[in-house]
Amino acid sequence: MSNGRHLILDLYDCPGHLLDDYRYLEEMLQTAVRMSGASLLRITGHKFEPEGVTILALLAESHASIHTWPAQQYAAVDLYTCNPDGVNAKKAADFIKHKLQAKEVEELEIERKVQK
Amino acid sequence: MSNGRHLILDLYDCPGHLLDDYRYLEEMLQTAVRMSGASLLRITGHKFEPEGVTILALLAESHASIHTWPAQQYAAVDLYTCNPDGVNAKKAADFIKHKLQAKEVEELEIERKVQK
Repeated sequence: MSNGRHLILDLYDCPGHLLDDYRYLEEMLQTAVRMSGASLLRITGHKFEPEGVTILALLAESHASIHTWPAQQYAAVDLYTCNPDGVNAKKAADFIKHKLQAKEVEELEIERKVQK
Repeated sequence: MSNGRHLILDLYDCPGHLLDDYRYLEEMLQTAVRMSGASLLRITGHKFEPEGVTILALLAESHASIHTWPAQQYAAVDLYTCNPDGVNAKKAADFIKHKLQAKEVEELEIERKVQK
């Protein structure tokens, strides 16, 4: 049983209109999951008023999420995969950074140990 | 606009039967969210075969999630709240630790900055 890998991305200076486009973000996350080799089991989300989007993707290998703040041009992305050898989360992360046209990214990788 | 607070919990030595009880975990997460003062907008999940559960809760203030590995007596919990002043995520975390009877917990708190 391999440990989980949790990629935490804070994306800055993204065009605000992309961050408020639910359909765009949902398709982006679906494609990112597919590119990583993970299996999408369910996807749900919410469009906030006056702005902002949350999308949560339930994966066979844990989850992926995005929360956006269009006015601040900021998006928070999590890619948590519990089968890191079989899933290329970095590929998904690169795709998301590209699609959101982020000018600056803070990235953190956390190992989540299944056994202490 | 205050920054997000992301609590990452790895819970060890939890009784395996609790970690495979979908209804128990769903109710636990719903109650934890309510206790924290956050607003639950949607909840979804999956029961894996032969074992293991994932539950994702979409909040007005971001998300909460749990993934379990009953055989390893391990659960991975995330509590990410974007309105940390109005939400007491620590209260939710304490409740979850108690309900899962975790003997050991690794806890990490990450500030997710809306602006760099």
